[in-house]
Amino acid sequence: MSADAEDAPAGSDDEVMQELVKLADELYEQIDDGEVPRVRIPTRTKNNVEYDDESGVWVYGDSQSTRSAASVSGARKLLRLAYVLDFIHDQVDEGRSSTLRELYYLSEGWGDAQFNSQDESDRLVEDLEIVSDVRRERFRMRPEEDGATVIGPVRIREQTRRGEREIHCQEDVGEGGYQIPTDVDTVEFLQNDSEFVLAVETGGMRDRLVENGFDEEYGALVVHLKGQPARSTRRLIKRLHNEQDLPVAVFTDSDPWSYRIFGSVAYGSIKSAHLSKHLATPEAEFVGIQPSDIVDYDLPTDPLGDSDINALENELDDPRFDTPYWKEQIELQLDIDKKAEQQSLASRGLDFVTESYLPERLGEMGYL
Amino acid sequence: MSADAEDAPAGSDDEVMQELVKLADELYEQIDDGEVPRVRIPTRTKNNVEYDDESGVWVYGDSQSTRSAASVSGARKLLRLAYVLDFIHDQVDEGRSSTLRELYYLSEGWGDAQFNSQDESDRLVEDLEIVSDVRRERFRMRPEEDGATVIGPVRIREQTRRGEREIHCQEDVGEGGYQIPTDVDTVEFLQNDSEFVLAVETGGMRDRLVENGFDEEYGALVVHLKGQPARSTRRLIKRLHNEQDLPVAVFTDSDPWSYRIFGSVAYGSIKSAHLSKHLATPEAEFVGIQPSDIVDYDLPTDPLGDSDINALENELDDPRFDTPYWKEQIELQLDIDKKAEQQSLASRGLDFVTESYLPERLGEMGYL
Repeated sequence: MSADAEDAPAGSDDEVMQELVKLADELYEQIDDGEVPRVRIPTRTKNNVEYDDESGVWVYGDSQSTRSAASVSGARKLLRLAYVLDFIHDQVDEGRSSTLRELYYLSEGWGDAQFNSQDESDRLVEDLEIVSDVRRERFRMRPEEDGATVIGPVRIREQTRRGEREIHCQEDVGEGGYQIPTDVDTVEFLQNDSEFVLAVETGGMRDRLVENGFDEEYGALVVHLKGQPARSTRRLIKRLHNEQDLPVAVFTDSDPWSYRIFGSVAYGSIKSAHLSKHLATPEAEFVGIQPSDIVDYDLPTDPLGDSDINALENELDDPRFDTPYWKEQIELQLDIDKKAEQQSLASRGLDFVTESYLPERLGEMGYL
Repeated sequence: MSADAEDAPAGSDDEVMQELVKLADELYEQIDDGEVPRVRIPTRTKNNVEYDDESGVWVYGDSQSTRSAASVSGARKLLRLAYVLDFIHDQVDEGRSSTLRELYYLSEGWGDAQFNSQDESDRLVEDLEIVSDVRRERFRMRPEEDGATVIGPVRIREQTRRGEREIHCQEDVGEGGYQIPTDVDTVEFLQNDSEFVLAVETGGMRDRLVENGFDEEYGALVVHLKGQPARSTRRLIKRLHNEQDLPVAVFTDSDPWSYRIFGSVAYGSIKSAHLSKHLATPEAEFVGIQPSDIVDYDLPTDPLGDSDINALENELDDPRFDTPYWKEQIELQLDIDKKAEQQSLASRGLDFVTESYLPERLGEMGYL
């Protein structure tokens, strides 16, 4: 699959600034026309998030809400929006960046527009992403979250504030791998000798694959998800898939939370439905650990807790998992009442995962 | 300060294996002498951990306990010890490594010696560290925890399983920095142009310092602690201090949990008192945020919660914080009933931390 128009590079700083100015212009025009200034945004409740069958990701529905200066609280929201527009415009103009937390603290100097909590400022930045159709990373707003590390046969060029860096993600890095930056769109893929992306939930398993040379033997690009993946990690995976035609296999523990990790890589999340087209990779596939592996390989397990059972039952009703494969696996898991970790494969020896499990599973799936 | 004998390089794989064989030999000799086999280990309770005034770190006291085969549970513990000795010996011999979690799962095949929980296997590895005086990293046992990233004017050589890698921690890395490996003793310092280590608690502040070029302007080696630092991170800081004569400043939030982060860098922790000599840097200094900064700079704050107050009161009784400086700061904090984050400095502008706060504080402390 090649990059589609929707996923085109996010545009230059100038284009980002134009989008921001356009928003400000609209407010000015409303005032000039004698209207009460307002902004319309998709309603961001669960009821207005839909699974889009065609694209296979979560998107917002048609319901919209209005932030209008007709009320004091609405006026304050628009004032904050104006301050944030101004701040981000200057930031992009100066080539600076800041964290979401810094933005919250910066508002201390904004008088009536000061935020009462970081939830408010985070949400406003998300609103701004939605109405401008520009991702936060292009605003140069950084999260606190940590990006993933990558190891595998890919040569990248990262545009840093200190100049360009060319890095081969096997030859020029230590065993820790290449630490991806918070804005992955500063990374360009120069040369790709990998065959597929293997996205791995836990650090212990990531280290096992690296020690066993799985990336070298199979041309795997091993991406460490670090649990629920950061936006930058999901964006990287999406770009590797779209731009380098790499299939994506997701390798996690066998429990409902890990299936959600797979879901967020493949289908996006409700919280960031407006970003699905930039972050989700609907073609990503689940390699395991499958509940049927627990049975087939007699893996060491823990019993399901109440919250596990609830989460599995919710997943049975989740359109993302509405396939015969997932129904069978989730029902099997509820039936055997067990969950297992990736590293439980070690009960069959340290090399079992790289010599048997992954080659067999990835072979069946057509990756090898 | 130069490296002392206690902190000499941990020895070759051969020496590690000799230590393990020596332990096994002792058990054999006891059996040959007609004695019930046993191992003596320092008692690892709070009562047997002492603050050593001379070295300024936590160490074990004189109390010892005995694991003896005279009881069934003692015999099982010695059996497990024998299995683990054998496993680690082979692992080191083959140049392999594994995670603590993998060790737990591997024991599935050990019959009566199988561990019931990872707590048991983790603890046995710690016991083994104590009786052999060899660190877990030399056993090639990896943790799950993530090591820190480093950025600054230092050129290192990392011995990886794929050969040697030479990396300059400013010129050869992206903005994410150099990801240190789980065993930092595979890293050699080739060239150091930095003046001091600045260990930073949060990712947001680490990114701020990197964006503002603080490492370049002041020759700072910026180490991201990522909250409570991993063993590898503390070991790296210790080695930079001992081998490169670098002073170490620790930069955290202003709350009792952050002072504990400073404490674990400087004085070690009760849990790993046997490792203090390898991991703790008693000469490390606290740069802030100080409670007095909250007052002096009128920083945005949150009120102290009950657990904050308890933790601060415990710190007043903690020998590590038994100095006039800490007494004054902690009492001030209890008095003003406020805590603040590193990033709250952003309320005075994004450059305040690098243009004013750190230069002033580090200047007073004699670092600049």
